[in-house]
Amino acid sequence: MPEQPGEFELIAALRERARRAGAPEPSRLVVGSGDDATVATGGPAVVTSVDSVVEGVHFERPPFPPRAIGHKALAAALSDIAAMGARPGEAYVQLLLPDDLDVDACLELADGLAAVAARHGVAIAGGDVSRAPVLALAITVVGYLDRPEDAVRRAGAAPGDLVVVTGELGGAAAGLLALRDADAVAELDPAVVDRLRRRQLEPEPRLAAGGALAAAGATAMIDLSDGLGADAAHLAGASGVRIAIDVDGLPVEIGVADLAAAVGADPLDLAAGGGEDYELLATLPPARVEEARSAVEAADTALSGIGRVDEGTGVELTDARGASRSPAGYDQLAGRRAPRDRAGRGEAWR
Amino acid sequence: MPEQPGEFELIAALRERARRAGAPEPSRLVVGSGDDATVATGGPAVVTSVDSVVEGVHFERPPFPPRAIGHKALAAALSDIAAMGARPGEAYVQLLLPDDLDVDACLELADGLAAVAARHGVAIAGGDVSRAPVLALAITVVGYLDRPEDAVRRAGAAPGDLVVVTGELGGAAAGLLALRDADAVAELDPAVVDRLRRRQLEPEPRLAAGGALAAAGATAMIDLSDGLGADAAHLAGASGVRIAIDVDGLPVEIGVADLAAAVGADPLDLAAGGGEDYELLATLPPARVEEARSAVEAADTALSGIGRVDEGTGVELTDARGASRSPAGYDQLAGRRAPRDRAGRGEAWR
Repeated sequence: MPEQPGEFELIAALRERARRAGAPEPSRLVVGSGDDATVATGGPAVVTSVDSVVEGVHFERPPFPPRAIGHKALAAALSDIAAMGARPGEAYVQLLLPDDLDVDACLELADGLAAVAARHGVAIAGGDVSRAPVLALAITVVGYLDRPEDAVRRAGAAPGDLVVVTGELGGAAAGLLALRDADAVAELDPAVVDRLRRRQLEPEPRLAAGGALAAAGATAMIDLSDGLGADAAHLAGASGVRIAIDVDGLPVEIGVADLAAAVGADPLDLAAGGGEDYELLATLPPARVEEARSAVEAADTALSGIGRVDEGTGVELTDARGASRSPAGYDQLAGRRAPRDRAGRGEAWR
Repeated sequence: MPEQPGEFELIAALRERARRAGAPEPSRLVVGSGDDATVATGGPAVVTSVDSVVEGVHFERPPFPPRAIGHKALAAALSDIAAMGARPGEAYVQLLLPDDLDVDACLELADGLAAVAARHGVAIAGGDVSRAPVLALAITVVGYLDRPEDAVRRAGAAPGDLVVVTGELGGAAAGLLALRDADAVAELDPAVVDRLRRRQLEPEPRLAAGGALAAAGATAMIDLSDGLGADAAHLAGASGVRIAIDVDGLPVEIGVADLAAAVGADPLDLAAGGGEDYELLATLPPARVEEARSAVEAADTALSGIGRVDEGTGVELTDARGASRSPAGYDQLAGRRAPRDRAGRGEAWR
């Protein structure tokens, strides 16, 4: 283990020590940690996920207004429930509040949480507040499935399946660039820029689409928090397959190309390397794709075919000329050093 | 609302805003927030509680070693599951780690969590780690009941019931004094002092006793985190009754009287005003008390009758001469100002 343990190492060490100390394997959990969420059974299955964000690590005030911090924290947590194909249930919110966050800011933050909860039928079922030197939110979300085997895991993609993605890509990364450099985007349509900023500040978890994809027979699913390339690699790794993606077919959000041109970025980096779109990436047998598309569109979300599942390992992004592409990762886009402890989830924002 | 909202105000505001924004009332929750834990049903009932502790607010390093921080955080969270009479299930641990906590300290903290999990058959089912300027733990615990109506709430005590408490009282408060002033206790038996310190550093949730009390027909139950006087008042308030406690009958932990004498404190302040013993306070019909005592003793814990439930409101602590007593609260014992946002739970430790 390195001198400073990362998230993965520490959780692995914690689980290992719990095992060695005699803690039971989680027999009630049909899906344990390592997937988007855990699934606990005992009648209708209970799906639980936790997610924390910390000021100075995941976001800064400004550019994040309090409402966006609350909104995004709950939306990001619920995105994991969506990626299991589960119905959302309850949320528990543990708030760490610094003294310089005044009452108005606290209430704005509460409004952001409330708006997401209301839109997705989630009950804020409990919580906890402590003073702390920085603002942090630790969110627990619980969802439900009729049967534990209905959970759509990261593992399950099979060669021959098609790869689909909901909604549009690149908007959150473009919105972050727009938040950080207002001068560079001064010439662009303000309405488009504002919509991109909102994709970064107030993402929506694809809960209805996730349920539709599960019902339509999705074989594997993950939400896009790290970026398409990285999250596809997680899914490929869990499923033991190779994923081939046609980058010319990616559904790039309106305005991303213009913004990329304005700031001198590659739109592909934003669409395939940028994180935090919180869209869903899923795999399906070809015969089920049209049914899935109809069901997802009925949930007011687009569904695009973007690639296929092959034998092998890893992810290949290829353009129309057959050239392989390797999009810049989110860390580079965000112009910051890669955190020492990047561990798949929870290091985006900022 | 005051200039700085407290925990209660903020959670209430959050819930109110969620309601106003259109979030559903938690119909799946048989018991919502405001009790020790929430109960969600849909087959066997799922019991969930969250609890955070923050360095500089709830504890300092030292005197708290990392192992005790992990141990106590999980034990305190599970104590809420015990107080519902539920079986423990899973725990989710969200860690905020400062850069000055080295790898050995992280692993010690994990050992503390693991030891409690192992002892009580709890699966550590997930978690999350972030960097932060101070150490904080946000714990989510989930327990189970066969039927949601089996949950023992704070409400339910009826006039004529007897009041019982598990184990011994005052040890945690005495242990905190011993941790803070080694000189004052230098003349006492080191083994006794060490046991008191461990009552403060490594409390045990009374899960088996809680299940036994529930099965024996407890009408109301709460865990003792704030102190007997304060927690009895919570139970009395939720039940709409008056609770009369005979302080001469309190089961005071061995060594508490000697330690109190050594530091010039009143042992009653430690036993009835000191918090964090994490024993269970319950009410029972008189006819069920012997059955409850046998069941709790079978779980290796003592059960003491300490008072009765009357018509009325509030809590009265009376000694053998009939004199009313009002023990000093935990804040005074700990020698610190009362926090502005004291809200029942979560402000002890330190």
